[in-house]
Amino acid sequence: MTDFAATKALFHLPEGVIYLDGNSLGPLPKAAASRVAQAVEAEWGEMLITGWNKAGWMAQPGVLGDRIGRLIGAAPGHTVIGDTLSIKVYQALASALALRPGRKLILSDTGNFPSDLYMAEGLIAAFGQGHVLKTVAPEAVADQIDDSVAVLMLTEVDYRTGRLHNMAALTAQAHAAGVLTVWDLAHSAGAIEVDLTAAQADFVVGCTYKYLNAGPGAPAFISVAPRHAEAVRPALSGWLGHEAPFAFEPQYRPGRGIERMRVGTPPVLQMAALEAALDIWEHVDMAAVRARSIELTELFIAEVETACPSLTLNSPRDSARRGSQVAWRHPEGYAVMQALIARGVIGDFRAPDNLRFGFTPLYIGTEEVRAAVAILADILDNRLWDRPEYKARAAVT
Amino acid sequence: MTDFAATKALFHLPEGVIYLDGNSLGPLPKAAASRVAQAVEAEWGEMLITGWNKAGWMAQPGVLGDRIGRLIGAAPGHTVIGDTLSIKVYQALASALALRPGRKLILSDTGNFPSDLYMAEGLIAAFGQGHVLKTVAPEAVADQIDDSVAVLMLTEVDYRTGRLHNMAALTAQAHAAGVLTVWDLAHSAGAIEVDLTAAQADFVVGCTYKYLNAGPGAPAFISVAPRHAEAVRPALSGWLGHEAPFAFEPQYRPGRGIERMRVGTPPVLQMAALEAALDIWEHVDMAAVRARSIELTELFIAEVETACPSLTLNSPRDSARRGSQVAWRHPEGYAVMQALIARGVIGDFRAPDNLRFGFTPLYIGTEEVRAAVAILADILDNRLWDRPEYKARAAVT
Repeated sequence: MTDFAATKALFHLPEGVIYLDGNSLGPLPKAAASRVAQAVEAEWGEMLITGWNKAGWMAQPGVLGDRIGRLIGAAPGHTVIGDTLSIKVYQALASALALRPGRKLILSDTGNFPSDLYMAEGLIAAFGQGHVLKTVAPEAVADQIDDSVAVLMLTEVDYRTGRLHNMAALTAQAHAAGVLTVWDLAHSAGAIEVDLTAAQADFVVGCTYKYLNAGPGAPAFISVAPRHAEAVRPALSGWLGHEAPFAFEPQYRPGRGIERMRVGTPPVLQMAALEAALDIWEHVDMAAVRARSIELTELFIAEVETACPSLTLNSPRDSARRGSQVAWRHPEGYAVMQALIARGVIGDFRAPDNLRFGFTPLYIGTEEVRAAVAILADILDNRLWDRPEYKARAAVT
Repeated sequence: MTDFAATKALFHLPEGVIYLDGNSLGPLPKAAASRVAQAVEAEWGEMLITGWNKAGWMAQPGVLGDRIGRLIGAAPGHTVIGDTLSIKVYQALASALALRPGRKLILSDTGNFPSDLYMAEGLIAAFGQGHVLKTVAPEAVADQIDDSVAVLMLTEVDYRTGRLHNMAALTAQAHAAGVLTVWDLAHSAGAIEVDLTAAQADFVVGCTYKYLNAGPGAPAFISVAPRHAEAVRPALSGWLGHEAPFAFEPQYRPGRGIERMRVGTPPVLQMAALEAALDIWEHVDMAAVRARSIELTELFIAEVETACPSLTLNSPRDSARRGSQVAWRHPEGYAVMQALIARGVIGDFRAPDNLRFGFTPLYIGTEEVRAAVAILADILDNRLWDRPEYKARAAVT
């Protein structure tokens, strides 16, 4: 059993804050501060260039990739970290399209994260050969899968509503029609149970700064099904994805398997933070996390529905169809969220009118849920959100 | 005048080390340690998600980009940091190709860094429509520029030999033939005087972990000439290059000018190190750096030719045609470099037989040059490199 009181003690949480935004940026694992300082001072400072070997920087993307892979049921040796999630989406999509040269349709849904859609749009605009991106409503996806589709590209958990796709079922249906899948696990990894091997997912990407708590700008990851590992020729073919990067050969030769999904120099300082963040996950059982997450979201929904009648639930009510976050609609959602943040309850706002709250059992328990709802109810009951400074929008929230 | 004794005091250099590899990875600016710790503890730890606004993380890529732009003569507001150099090469190349739809030839040279060539090769293999990458000898480039060429893609300073292209002349020749240019400044930024505006360079990329000293895995930069800024539609069209990232619109709309060259979430911890590294450059005059660099490389060449007759110079002898590094060939170059490193003189080895030494006036002076040559001569005179442990090759050097 996972001891959530013990995991909570491993995070730094500011005084007076109830942090319900770990689905956007996880908090600081206490050990990350010293691990990053070690990378800066003992590694960069003392080893200089020799750190690439001596401190293991060069091998880290695969080592860290496998540690993430374990959390999402990827086969060992088939996950690597690097770049940003948008870049990894591009790699995955380009790879999948190349394996279906006769088909032109990329199928996605309106619940996908905009950057994923933008990357597909950019790829098509720059290089498409009759390719088309089609986005349908999430519930219409299954009906649109047929043999005209090259790639089904979806985010498993909707970033706004938390609605959860059935990855295994949609992947099976896609495969039956000869369609390859690109799954984005941004709101899944560390949030819900994922078994890529059982689902036979083809190309899978995700980020590490949300539920995995690796810090702002932490690298992304990509996982490729073993059956595709040697078949893919990467569109983003950088030297660290080369079979022999330090031979400096004039021609590209793809590295073995997932190694070819590496591109440029890995971000050593961000990797240090990621390493410390993943240490926590070594002692965590994803089934226990999922069970506790459901307990927290169920409690939150029940308490808010009782105490805050002006909010409308914008997440699935059935916990089996919901990730680890809950969204509520309110016409003044932006101002309400600013008022909440001013009271120490940090969630976030997602246009047009969503109040979004993430539930992260590693450091959030029932006590925090109840306290947050009490503050939310006070703000709504007394219209405390109705102040000009809460209505003036900043660039990011 | 730049005070190089003062700049040297701003770096941490390990005891007993003469560091002639700042052209591969610059040393730690002392202030970077506390600046990174601040980003981890005071920003990530205390501000959590609100750091994107409060700590200015979201705006940093443009702010830091402009500070680099100043060092390379870019127009203000036309340089941004992010991703890795390989990714930025891809962005630049895809952008340039899109502006020359009727032409199919990418011209480069054998002195270009392999990853740049690999990225072009991958782009063509994945998406080319009859495109061809042609690489010729560096000295043959000028003869090959004609109106069949879409893009001239070169690294200004050869990563092995330090040979320096004439950016202004080649760019002018390219433009006369209707050719666009992609210049890689990996070994130029912070090493030599660069004036992008005077040269009218089109697309320019570079890294920050070499002469700029921003640390292992530091982000890259891209600079786009003002005349192209609004014309380019990025192939890698991520949400942070969108005109309104937090509107989460379903369609991509490119951000203003250089903003559209942003892709995903910027690496906050690496940016903190970059910020501290750039603080040093605020007080540095690039003309003084170049003059001192030439003094150091001239001294090094003269001393080595006197003391180490078994080495063959593999860099241009004319300092006006040389960057800030010097390469020597030796049949046992790998083992010689290992022996040097064991004695505290850190340079690096570049296949097949190059001993490569970088000269970085901010923290290297004539004293270090003389001391390094004495050790090199001792190793060669007494065949101290002839030991099995120096001949066994590690993955990276």
